Amino acid sequence: MTADTHGDDERVVVLAHEKFPERAKTATGVLKYAEYDVVAVLDRDRAGTTTTDHRADLPAVPIVESMADAPTADTLLIGISPIGGEFDDSWRPDVRTAIERGCDVVAGLHSFLSADAEFAELAAEHGVELRDVRKPPADLTVASGAGADVDADVVLTVGTDCSVGKMTVALELLAAARHRGVDAGFVPTGQTGIMIAGWGNPIDRVVSDFTAGAVEEMLVEVGDEYDVLFVEGQGSIVHPAYSAVTCGILHGAMPDAMVLCHSAGREAIHGYESFDLPPIDEYVDLYEGLAAPVHQSDVVAGALNTSAIEDDEAARAAVEEYAGALAAPATDPVRFDADAVLDAVLEEV
Amino acid sequence: MTADTHGDDERVVVLAHEKFPERAKTATGVLKYAEYDVVAVLDRDRAGTTTTDHRADLPAVPIVESMADAPTADTLLIGISPIGGEFDDSWRPDVRTAIERGCDVVAGLHSFLSADAEFAELAAEHGVELRDVRKPPADLTVASGAGADVDADVVLTVGTDCSVGKMTVALELLAAARHRGVDAGFVPTGQTGIMIAGWGNPIDRVVSDFTAGAVEEMLVEVGDEYDVLFVEGQGSIVHPAYSAVTCGILHGAMPDAMVLCHSAGREAIHGYESFDLPPIDEYVDLYEGLAAPVHQSDVVAGALNTSAIEDDEAARAAVEEYAGALAAPATDPVRFDADAVLDAVLEEV
Repeated sequence: MTADTHGDDERVVVLAHEKFPERAKTATGVLKYAEYDVVAVLDRDRAGTTTTDHRADLPAVPIVESMADAPTADTLLIGISPIGGEFDDSWRPDVRTAIERGCDVVAGLHSFLSADAEFAELAAEHGVELRDVRKPPADLTVASGAGADVDADVVLTVGTDCSVGKMTVALELLAAARHRGVDAGFVPTGQTGIMIAGWGNPIDRVVSDFTAGAVEEMLVEVGDEYDVLFVEGQGSIVHPAYSAVTCGILHGAMPDAMVLCHSAGREAIHGYESFDLPPIDEYVDLYEGLAAPVHQSDVVAGALNTSAIEDDEAARAAVEEYAGALAAPATDPVRFDADAVLDAVLEEV
Repeated sequence: MTADTHGDDERVVVLAHEKFPERAKTATGVLKYAEYDVVAVLDRDRAGTTTTDHRADLPAVPIVESMADAPTADTLLIGISPIGGEFDDSWRPDVRTAIERGCDVVAGLHSFLSADAEFAELAAEHGVELRDVRKPPADLTVASGAGADVDADVVLTVGTDCSVGKMTVALELLAAARHRGVDAGFVPTGQTGIMIAGWGNPIDRVVSDFTAGAVEEMLVEVGDEYDVLFVEGQGSIVHPAYSAVTCGILHGAMPDAMVLCHSAGREAIHGYESFDLPPIDEYVDLYEGLAAPVHQSDVVAGALNTSAIEDDEAARAAVEEYAGALAAPATDPVRFDADAVLDAVLEEV
């Protein structure tokens, strides 16, 4: 997938059967942040309703029963992922219909659509593409250090843990920067980010030796087209399982500034509860210390996911406390505005 | 490949055509450190000589022209790797002869022996195994944090750069510990280490998400069989290309102590000369700071590769200077003895 795969006028149908919106993170991410046009959501449990009936912050898109009921489209995108990441056979008729109607099909599943004999044959027959975004390109290699040479200023979202909002924060900062007229771009590193952006390398699936190289390859591809690039971070530098991916992104992206993302109240690594999160200032020292020998970079701001806090005042207090621990501006860019954080970022780069 | 693939009485022929010993790092590593019995080296340019004619620190093994001239053996091991890691067709008759004589063939090449139609067919016919050590096992997954629970104390060699001797130092410490009667084992992480040990996961070739998990899997496999495990580190935590592998090994191995390896006179990252090495004490802070949130570990000693320094006194002075920078005991375990460093390691774990 290259940076120009999706045109902004591409019409996309998003499959989210039985899971919209709470358990359809990719579907809601695509609805909220992608530049292409989502023309329908497939959810057989909510057919006849509209996305906004379920979540007010999404664009209004009709939810229909099946691909046969969807309007004309260019692409079907699988917007949910069952545990294990396998294809669910109840989706087979929708994928078949999509291919027969001439749609490309995009998925981020563990099991590749392109390895499914029926779909591969049907796709060849109808001249459409099956795009498995978890499948890394075959031509990746080791980093050369070229990330330092791109024209754009690079901002990387880093985190205290997985699932603290690194992709969302990058996309919110992108939107806020563009709103100010900044020529800003987004570099995805995970499957949802890739589906939203319509291009990108799935960094967690590449050969470990190529981790930094796969990030560098994207920077080199788009780094001269923008003034500022927001790079989606992954994991955490002290995650017992995923720190390799985090470290490779840090050194491959060679950021000029970092935004530290955290989730309010999180005290231990998600799913690894015997590992406590270190204090916030220790994260700042670790990320800055590790970045510096390759490319000097400071944590210039923070983003706190306050979605678990009901009361706005309490959320604002949590953000203030987080800013204090960081000794830098902070916000929850989904709940509040991103201005002070964006100021800090743009001032630094 | 599992931990018991090689018996200690296995007879191995090592192929090193035209490159022994200077350009045959795997061959010399295997000769020096493997527990199995190397019965011949193949080098058509040096046939009729003995390994010790070329390097005094190796066991005396006859060098012969081809597999047809080698004594009875169980295994042929490809002990050299051309640029690019491709199979050299001039080796084909030797591999063919080996298979026909009932030998397994072990290689660490980019191009897999098992993907070669002729070899695959011949191996099936003769009931021998083609072992490509760069091919990761298919059943690897993410780390669970189980590395913390193994009985053995874990010592990890870490480095200031690639090619500073992390594997050699781990193997020298292993030998010194065993010499003292310590029940010590070795955990390989790269292709030469795997060939020497006869088992192991090639960490630089696994899916990046599984980097720590692939190390953990080895620790869990052998961690209750030994009192001390020496884990071979890779790369450097501030390497522009390979830091992801380093970081995954650090968190997957959960070492109880680290030995920092460095090469005398190295001032910039090898092959990435625009990136200066940070000061030694900064490496200590980075490795310890990054390890601590997952598993507390100190850099308790250092190893300096002084092979570029001709004079022993000058080498000893360089080691002393390095120990001062580390504020810990140091040695060149190949040139001098490993006692003080081993003391520091065994005291810590």
